Amino acid sequence: MRQTFDETTDPSFGPKHLPLIRAAMAEQGLDALLVPHEDEHQNEYLPAANDRLGWATGFTGSAGAAVIFQDKAAIFVDGRYTLQVRDQVDPATFEIRDLVDGGVSGYLETAAQPGQQIGYDPRLHSPDALARLKAAAAKAGAELKPAPLNPLDAAWGEARPAQPSAPVVPHPLEYAGEESAAKRKRVGEALTAQGAKAAVLTAPSSLAWLFNIRGGDVIRSPLPLGQAILAADGTAQLFLDPRKVTPELPAWLGNEVTLERPEDLAQALAGLKGQTVLVDPAQSSAWYFDTLAAGGAQVLRAEDPCTLPRACKNPVELEGTRRAHARDGAALTRFLHWLETTSPTSPPDEITAVRQLEAFREATGALKDLSFDTIAGTAGNGAIVHYRPTERLNKRAEPGTLMLIDSGAQYLDGTTDVTRTVAIGEPTQEMRERFTLVLKGHLALARARFPVGTTGSALDVLARHALWAHGLDYDHGTGHGVGSYLGVHEGPQRISKAPNSVALKPGMILSNEPGYYKEGAYGIRIENLEVVTEPAAIPGGERPMHGFETLTLAPIDRRCIARDLLTEAERTQLDAYHARVRAVIGPQLDGEARTWLDAATAPI
Amino acid sequence: MRQTFDETTDPSFGPKHLPLIRAAMAEQGLDALLVPHEDEHQNEYLPAANDRLGWATGFTGSAGAAVIFQDKAAIFVDGRYTLQVRDQVDPATFEIRDLVDGGVSGYLETAAQPGQQIGYDPRLHSPDALARLKAAAAKAGAELKPAPLNPLDAAWGEARPAQPSAPVVPHPLEYAGEESAAKRKRVGEALTAQGAKAAVLTAPSSLAWLFNIRGGDVIRSPLPLGQAILAADGTAQLFLDPRKVTPELPAWLGNEVTLERPEDLAQALAGLKGQTVLVDPAQSSAWYFDTLAAGGAQVLRAEDPCTLPRACKNPVELEGTRRAHARDGAALTRFLHWLETTSPTSPPDEITAVRQLEAFREATGALKDLSFDTIAGTAGNGAIVHYRPTERLNKRAEPGTLMLIDSGAQYLDGTTDVTRTVAIGEPTQEMRERFTLVLKGHLALARARFPVGTTGSALDVLARHALWAHGLDYDHGTGHGVGSYLGVHEGPQRISKAPNSVALKPGMILSNEPGYYKEGAYGIRIENLEVVTEPAAIPGGERPMHGFETLTLAPIDRRCIARDLLTEAERTQLDAYHARVRAVIGPQLDGEARTWLDAATAPI
Repeated sequence: MRQTFDETTDPSFGPKHLPLIRAAMAEQGLDALLVPHEDEHQNEYLPAANDRLGWATGFTGSAGAAVIFQDKAAIFVDGRYTLQVRDQVDPATFEIRDLVDGGVSGYLETAAQPGQQIGYDPRLHSPDALARLKAAAAKAGAELKPAPLNPLDAAWGEARPAQPSAPVVPHPLEYAGEESAAKRKRVGEALTAQGAKAAVLTAPSSLAWLFNIRGGDVIRSPLPLGQAILAADGTAQLFLDPRKVTPELPAWLGNEVTLERPEDLAQALAGLKGQTVLVDPAQSSAWYFDTLAAGGAQVLRAEDPCTLPRACKNPVELEGTRRAHARDGAALTRFLHWLETTSPTSPPDEITAVRQLEAFREATGALKDLSFDTIAGTAGNGAIVHYRPTERLNKRAEPGTLMLIDSGAQYLDGTTDVTRTVAIGEPTQEMRERFTLVLKGHLALARARFPVGTTGSALDVLARHALWAHGLDYDHGTGHGVGSYLGVHEGPQRISKAPNSVALKPGMILSNEPGYYKEGAYGIRIENLEVVTEPAAIPGGERPMHGFETLTLAPIDRRCIARDLLTEAERTQLDAYHARVRAVIGPQLDGEARTWLDAATAPI
Repeated sequence: MRQTFDETTDPSFGPKHLPLIRAAMAEQGLDALLVPHEDEHQNEYLPAANDRLGWATGFTGSAGAAVIFQDKAAIFVDGRYTLQVRDQVDPATFEIRDLVDGGVSGYLETAAQPGQQIGYDPRLHSPDALARLKAAAAKAGAELKPAPLNPLDAAWGEARPAQPSAPVVPHPLEYAGEESAAKRKRVGEALTAQGAKAAVLTAPSSLAWLFNIRGGDVIRSPLPLGQAILAADGTAQLFLDPRKVTPELPAWLGNEVTLERPEDLAQALAGLKGQTVLVDPAQSSAWYFDTLAAGGAQVLRAEDPCTLPRACKNPVELEGTRRAHARDGAALTRFLHWLETTSPTSPPDEITAVRQLEAFREATGALKDLSFDTIAGTAGNGAIVHYRPTERLNKRAEPGTLMLIDSGAQYLDGTTDVTRTVAIGEPTQEMRERFTLVLKGHLALARARFPVGTTGSALDVLARHALWAHGLDYDHGTGHGVGSYLGVHEGPQRISKAPNSVALKPGMILSNEPGYYKEGAYGIRIENLEVVTEPAAIPGGERPMHGFETLTLAPIDRRCIARDLLTEAERTQLDAYHARVRAVIGPQLDGEARTWLDAATAPI
């Protein structure tokens, strides 16, 4: 079993660990220490060795920060985590504050005293964030001081988990679809066009994509932690812990890529003296900017040049992801059949459901990992958007409730992410009406056609306007990018209320996941992955239009649909989707599951 | 008749005027001169005295620029004006270039020679635009040099029209709805909250709104040209040409506002030494920034503090605009009746139609001005988005065509802007289908409900997605803000593909004007004004939602609608709108017009 249900921290972490951290701060003459959630690689998920915020406070959310003074401390979380932080963090040790409203900067302005030295680890902060923090400290008359030997790491000491060292392996051309040399050539040409001689790449997903390699340093995604310097001529230096280098790797990388040791990175950056070097301030910490500037390079602040080409999947990657979705859809369909047939007699609890779904995925023989910990939220747990079942929170499904299951898998040929909301017993009329409003938004987005240059922000309202018309909404984005056997959250594209200036391009994969959440009662989300199609002519039209091809194939629970709320066109669209599900998934099933699928995908 | 149909420039302007301008440049030792479209007040419409680009080149579009060297010259226009510029400007005198792609900066980089002095009038350029131009000149080794005595003005000499001096009059409280003192107090408090002691206001619409005054210096809008310095305590200095000051004005302005002469402005700015002064770089030219900085003030770059409060109309302004729209809708309905009954026997030409519509508006007895020159475009002329009929371009409506009429009026109680597209004879099936797709978008936007914080950019797709699904689109924004007896184009709100971060707020008036244009054949646009309503609960819902109240009341041509393409809900919405039109406009009509309206607004 890959997923676990224990809790890795508890509220005693703060009281236990703060004295150790404060002693280490005192040794370096620091009055305070900044503890961001981000690690050296600015990843979404952290290796256990880098979850400094979790160790210091007990808080395990995906965003946050703490400031530790000798005589006080505060933790900062956003609106998603206001409940969770009270559950995980000792309020006598940490004052709980808002990460967005005021945030760390606002706190420093009033909490710091004139003359105080506030330590920070320059490898953990983006240059822009650091500039804001410096200005805030200065307002209070205090000063930010780099602490390259992080006092928290010193305090953690022997108890700190080892840095991950999962082997880095080739990602074969049958999955990657383009030789690394070709990728390096075209990214190098893009560098030249921007007037840069080289780029420093620090995003693990960029290393994985550019060199056609995969690793396992971060749970739930095959990311290799490391760095690279890519020259505009397509040659590169790749900095990897030698323990991770597998025997076949040097030959796979070829002559144009040299393997280097991470401890030689600073010297390599100094070697770029006099050159214009691209670094992405959203991906790379202040340390890179400072080190390059000190070494005499001209720093060009620009987007990581791998970001956009990585997002636009090539035909081989798209064929792979279609295979992955067909396989994954069959596993999910087996689970949905199991859930519907089991729940009337012995409704499962959330953990049992999560284990059963993982078992069906494991049985495909192709599962490399989950793409994130499965969310199975029954009744009120389904309304907690960032819920993850644990032994303590685990709940049994009761008749008359909904269970929301958001899950995904990592396969060599693709990454999946799918949410289905399933009736346990008979849903109420209100549940069916709201499920149908969510479905109308999901269908509207899926069938959208749109001209070249359209952004995800422009499309977001299509998924919401049926809910809005009924005075309802959901407080999360509608869609995120998804990688190809890479991160399940990937930029630069995004479908959300927040402005995003990235035009959707053919081959980009996005989730389509509107929802509705009734606090304490139930949660609804319907999520498929969609790939942006090439602009194509429409009969009788004038301008070629993009559209979406739906990748995810699994039945949407017809028992939850208030049929009368759907228009004829929406019913036709849903029936056509279900016919595709039946055609692709059906042949992979037999017996009762096959019969069940036929019924579950019958016209509405 | 207010609207004229002559052409005020011709292609001989360039060859005639360039030698004069070049001689004046030479006297000041300038090798080149920058000629932007913008004037000292950064208005959309220019007084004739300030249309420097038109006098120098012949081009009369609403955006553009020219650069005049001693031995060459170039004019820059955007994609909307590529046809018009070839019609109006002598190509032997001016090289025609793209305003957006490369633009003036790109041209300077290659066209300027090392050591050249390029003159600019600092009152005409925004500080950001100027910074880009300076950098471009520097790349070529040339230098931008301020020319406070604009050589073009010197060359224009006696032939230049006089500066406008229309009387500035009080705008009574029965229309304005809030005392100037109250406005100045709350804007002053906003300045204090931003840490500013004063604001320099240069937008004529801000002066009009803040002081409850109206002028007539710019055609089609009651704008008073001038400037003001508003102190955070609510007192102000208002700089107006004494010729414009009417006898009642000083008492109307009260003790807290002093009238000053424009020539004393520079000295008044110098008097702000040591203070933090807000200036809006989007509204005020580099001259203000330079003068304040030279005088020792701290300049705070921020949005004009009148912009947002002006956009959110108060209840008195909203009542006024409803009255204005009821009056204007009756005039437009009389016109539509006239057009439909006249065209079968003697189809009018565009100019006749424009005159007839103006006559109906004049007959209300309340018309202060048109809010812009009426566009009446028949057949292919309707497909030219920025078309204005002239004697030369005027076309007679032929059976089987569409006529697009976009018009509006300025009344003391409100500003209108409305487009109707009318069948002359029998429309083709294609016309009806495309009209109906435009109508579907118009209706979708009009019925939208949306949560607090939603931007116009987020809603734009609602007006387009029916067209997109058929491979069609339109190349303009969907909606602009509209003033209250002020500019017919007003920020900061906007409904468009372009990202706009301004949340829609109650009282904001926006146009809803999707369209479709078939080059050389016909144009379709359906435009109503809508006002954003207060967030209101929806039965069965959880979150209060904004919506739109439609202000414009005039029939939408049922002969152009392909009924089968509308859903039941859309038909109900259209019928309800037409019932409102009949209820409000009907009682203002009698005889044939009344009978016609009843038929024109019958259920579809």
